[in-house]
Amino acid sequence: MQNKLTNTLSPQDFRTLVKSGEHQGNTSGVAQGFVQGNVVILPKEWAYDFLLFCQKNPKPCPLIGMSAQAGDYLLPELGKHLDIRTDVPSYRIFEQGKLIKVVNDIKDFWRDDLVTFVLGCSFSFEEALIADGLEIRNISEKKNVPMYRTNIACNAAGVFSGNMVVSMRPMLATDAIRSIQICSRFPSVHGAPVHLGDPSLIGINNLDETDFGDAVSIKPNEIPVFWACGVTPQVALEQAKPSFCITHSPGDMLVTDIPNSKLAVL
Amino acid sequence: MQNKLTNTLSPQDFRTLVKSGEHQGNTSGVAQGFVQGNVVILPKEWAYDFLLFCQKNPKPCPLIGMSAQAGDYLLPELGKHLDIRTDVPSYRIFEQGKLIKVVNDIKDFWRDDLVTFVLGCSFSFEEALIADGLEIRNISEKKNVPMYRTNIACNAAGVFSGNMVVSMRPMLATDAIRSIQICSRFPSVHGAPVHLGDPSLIGINNLDETDFGDAVSIKPNEIPVFWACGVTPQVALEQAKPSFCITHSPGDMLVTDIPNSKLAVL
Repeated sequence: MQNKLTNTLSPQDFRTLVKSGEHQGNTSGVAQGFVQGNVVILPKEWAYDFLLFCQKNPKPCPLIGMSAQAGDYLLPELGKHLDIRTDVPSYRIFEQGKLIKVVNDIKDFWRDDLVTFVLGCSFSFEEALIADGLEIRNISEKKNVPMYRTNIACNAAGVFSGNMVVSMRPMLATDAIRSIQICSRFPSVHGAPVHLGDPSLIGINNLDETDFGDAVSIKPNEIPVFWACGVTPQVALEQAKPSFCITHSPGDMLVTDIPNSKLAVL
Repeated sequence: MQNKLTNTLSPQDFRTLVKSGEHQGNTSGVAQGFVQGNVVILPKEWAYDFLLFCQKNPKPCPLIGMSAQAGDYLLPELGKHLDIRTDVPSYRIFEQGKLIKVVNDIKDFWRDDLVTFVLGCSFSFEEALIADGLEIRNISEKKNVPMYRTNIACNAAGVFSGNMVVSMRPMLATDAIRSIQICSRFPSVHGAPVHLGDPSLIGINNLDETDFGDAVSIKPNEIPVFWACGVTPQVALEQAKPSFCITHSPGDMLVTDIPNSKLAVL
């Protein structure tokens, strides 16, 4: 969680802080009430396969926006004056699937053939769950959500394939049922959980050993509840090794002008 | 399941068979697509408390209809020519909480002070789950659904109180999640499950020992999913011991003219 100032800033004002370098680091809790997104930027020649991968795997890869044309760095549908080259707190640059640099803006790396994809993120549904009175363990323990590689295969699309990554939140059964109802309203931020109960059934052997993020405590009578996770496309990128690729750094998301409530389908 | 003839009959035609005594026994699968109801008939002096009990416990006691005035035996809002004295295959007559008789029509027991309550039943949501491709174990094993007394206290209302009775259907986690989504659309037929996973957390020690209905098999990797059950008011009646009361016999429901789809809230 950030301080009170960034929590209550408008998305535009928050992005101004990011553009100027005044805000660095994670965006959990900033500009509350607005959609934050995972960012994937690829050369046009890789973009079609990636778009198809998102289309075929909407739970881990819910597309909420993309650039109108290759080379466009403004994304007006996602935010006023939103410039994808400067408005994410931290970027990771990959060449042939290898991380080569972490930077705070990508103006020097921008190319006319780059296509930007923005995917929904769990911050939106966590906000809806908290508003309903549920406890989100990673938030109450001030940790990054625990994430795990599973044995659930994504639907392959061209060069992209791989297994689903899931995030986990422990809950009592009644809260798990309620969270399924609430998250079902938000398909573009991962929607309903993909599994609950025995982790071994989806290939997770030990909940204390996360593949990404931090382990959280599981209290007596709680069951682990698993959601498709936006880290899934990063795993698919790892495997496909595109010649060039830029993503946000985990936790340092793009803050959009879209109210979370706009993503509710009902 | 009944034979093909009764499955495809209209609700009115099916009730004609019941009125004439040509259909006896349970109504599972008859007049497919239409709401069936649990029936509770009480003297007016007990009716207010029972109505309040339903109001305060909508998951086990979802009221879908009641008589307009004491003494009314026609329920036109629930069905054309529907006569509550003759249109239920089998009735149970109680005095001071004791079962005194099981009969096929209640014309001889009718009184001008009787109020009829009709409560939603799980047949409607089972139909929606099957239509979505889920397996309902009690149906595939041709058994009555397993039901259990729990330690979940209902909200008391006047003379009525007691613990919730639940029905149980074993499912894989992904099917359990889907069933929560589907049943959430149908709050007037018990809505979303009230529990899933460890039965002991709601006071059930052994799933093989049912309190009502039959045990069903639970396959590897399945979890038990529990729904609030329309037998709950019968338990409350058992405890309150009203001077006089009539209910349907379990499984022998009132078939109404309301399409199941009309109960969907979204």
